[in-house]
Amino acid sequence: MAAPYGGMTSPRNPPGAPRVGMVGGGQLARMTCQAAIALGAGFRVLAGSSSDSAARVWADTSLGDYRDAATLTAFAAGCDVLTFDHEHIPGDLLRQVPPSTAIRPAPEALRYTQDKLAMRDRLTAMGIRCPRYAAVRSLADVTKFGFPAVLKAVSGGYDGKGVWVCRDEAEAAPVVAYGIDLLAEELVRFSRELAVVAARSPHNQGAVYPIVETVQVDGICREVIAPAPGLDKEIAVKAQALALRIAAELEVTGLLAVELFETRDGLLVNELAMRPHNTAHWTIDGARTSQFEQHLRAVLDLPLGSTAATAQVTVMANVLGGTGDEWEIFDRYIHVMAADPGVKIHMYGKEPLPGRKIGHVTVCGTDVADVRGRARRAASYLRWGSEEGE
Amino acid sequence: MAAPYGGMTSPRNPPGAPRVGMVGGGQLARMTCQAAIALGAGFRVLAGSSSDSAARVWADTSLGDYRDAATLTAFAAGCDVLTFDHEHIPGDLLRQVPPSTAIRPAPEALRYTQDKLAMRDRLTAMGIRCPRYAAVRSLADVTKFGFPAVLKAVSGGYDGKGVWVCRDEAEAAPVVAYGIDLLAEELVRFSRELAVVAARSPHNQGAVYPIVETVQVDGICREVIAPAPGLDKEIAVKAQALALRIAAELEVTGLLAVELFETRDGLLVNELAMRPHNTAHWTIDGARTSQFEQHLRAVLDLPLGSTAATAQVTVMANVLGGTGDEWEIFDRYIHVMAADPGVKIHMYGKEPLPGRKIGHVTVCGTDVADVRGRARRAASYLRWGSEEGE
Repeated sequence: MAAPYGGMTSPRNPPGAPRVGMVGGGQLARMTCQAAIALGAGFRVLAGSSSDSAARVWADTSLGDYRDAATLTAFAAGCDVLTFDHEHIPGDLLRQVPPSTAIRPAPEALRYTQDKLAMRDRLTAMGIRCPRYAAVRSLADVTKFGFPAVLKAVSGGYDGKGVWVCRDEAEAAPVVAYGIDLLAEELVRFSRELAVVAARSPHNQGAVYPIVETVQVDGICREVIAPAPGLDKEIAVKAQALALRIAAELEVTGLLAVELFETRDGLLVNELAMRPHNTAHWTIDGARTSQFEQHLRAVLDLPLGSTAATAQVTVMANVLGGTGDEWEIFDRYIHVMAADPGVKIHMYGKEPLPGRKIGHVTVCGTDVADVRGRARRAASYLRWGSEEGE
Repeated sequence: MAAPYGGMTSPRNPPGAPRVGMVGGGQLARMTCQAAIALGAGFRVLAGSSSDSAARVWADTSLGDYRDAATLTAFAAGCDVLTFDHEHIPGDLLRQVPPSTAIRPAPEALRYTQDKLAMRDRLTAMGIRCPRYAAVRSLADVTKFGFPAVLKAVSGGYDGKGVWVCRDEAEAAPVVAYGIDLLAEELVRFSRELAVVAARSPHNQGAVYPIVETVQVDGICREVIAPAPGLDKEIAVKAQALALRIAAELEVTGLLAVELFETRDGLLVNELAMRPHNTAHWTIDGARTSQFEQHLRAVLDLPLGSTAATAQVTVMANVLGGTGDEWEIFDRYIHVMAADPGVKIHMYGKEPLPGRKIGHVTVCGTDVADVRGRARRAASYLRWGSEEGE
């Protein structure tokens, strides 16, 4: 029987296993390594540095700058499928990759994660509700839009970076003066933030995880509660259908994360991502199929895995760098593990710069308040060496 | 604050994280890699070949022959803790490792997995019931012991290798003629085989997983059912206590697996292992803490994790090499994943030689017959390309 994929082999790669290459060596790539180990898939990482999260652990890591066309193309040539742990790879570069390597998601889909204006226009054309928005080319455009205005970089923002809440012209003027492409959005009065992660395969199979509640602090996701407590069932089903519809219409292959605002008038789409997403880290410990395995299955065009939750309640809390003392984190394990043998710790092998996401913890259980408290205490202790650090 | 461990760093190793080195690059090391990724522990592998299961995936892999003292000592020098994915490392070699590297389990404990006669003598001295046994130096010793006799190599056997069931002198004679150290054991009439895996840390903390039923075919573990269906609760607790007691008395650090025969007269100890064990692979998908994480925690002297099962029933079925066609396995994923989105596949990146353990599947659920059927069908299809291949 013929090999199902290109059939190139490497000493790292089991013969016959298709090879997925992931551009980016951060924690998303690192956790995808765990899934690649189980699947026995050939998995390659293109990392910027040997100290990147995934590069620290993964044998088949290439070091190089993904913004260099020759580097990207050479990396892609060793892969059957190319995928991503971030969304910063310019479409122009991806279009230079020879067609013998499948790009999943394709640059045409990725565009909607790279250009917020294109994303807003496309979703609006699909009849999907978004915050009110307008393109901004001058301070006058912002004034015309009205205040308060949330100014966002059209490209390149993440984790609260590239987002400015402006109450008046004085606050907007310096942002406009950066000279970057901007859009203005209304400041949405939401009751809470939700997120939904779906997967879609090239065969157009879809699968969607339960809706989660996300808690953001300063634009950084701090906690995820799965499923979103007390969410109206009808709204939950609608949100799942919404994610599947966006994935299908944008022809996403792999994961699609949709961040949502829950308001009195219903759900608004905040952001899209097409990769494993912080709001689905809980699936490693709390769902039958982790999002990382699901992403690999989707980009390999394998049948998708069960998205069923395995616990009544799962809470994920991000661990941020706190004291910056590199020795402390591992010492703190002793306290956290002794205090709660059920806490699952996931560290990313990153230098614990203050405020940087360096890991996460997950707790599964039955009572939201209990599980959330346990996750918070563990994350806080890992950050500060105290359960009351924040 | 001072580094809690030796404090040597490598580019692969996050500063401050202690480094565990595992001797052996098989599937047990490969699955320990997944746990090491989450813990952020420095983890190094000493593999015999670049095509070994763990060497295919793990960056910090050294290639070399563990039987060479210089190789072993050099590898150990780069680790805070040395541990093992198999039990074949001679104690004499381990005693040459400088004391700055902790050996867990220590050679004094490992000895009872390397010398079945020493194990039988020690357990018997502890008052623990074993099959009737005797050392064998000649055919006359076997005859004196009586037939049927199970002849076992004192050292080096595994997966049914090194075990001969002899009905008479004619069958025993060629085994004795091998000239290896042997013991004879009674052929135990057991109702089924059980196993229990415990962990012990240098601090003497113990933790034990639920008792499982194991199904062996031709001496190879084929299925594990967790927990063992219908097991008397009192017997289960006794078996757990037994494993913890053996771990404590033999001063095991890390995991201890105890294989048991269930008989009308109670439990008999069959074998011991001091490493992650096939009978606890189910814990990756079916317990709060996988055995691989537990082993790392134990050898790092971290508090042990919860051993609670996360599903009512979990069944693991080993995938053996079948047709030997290297291309087929990945193709077969399409069938298995489409037929049952809840099956968890774990492949080891090993060449699928007929009869060789090349992976396992796990299914979690509520009904033993249902879950077992699903696991069997998946494992059979991965082996033969058919659900009725065996």
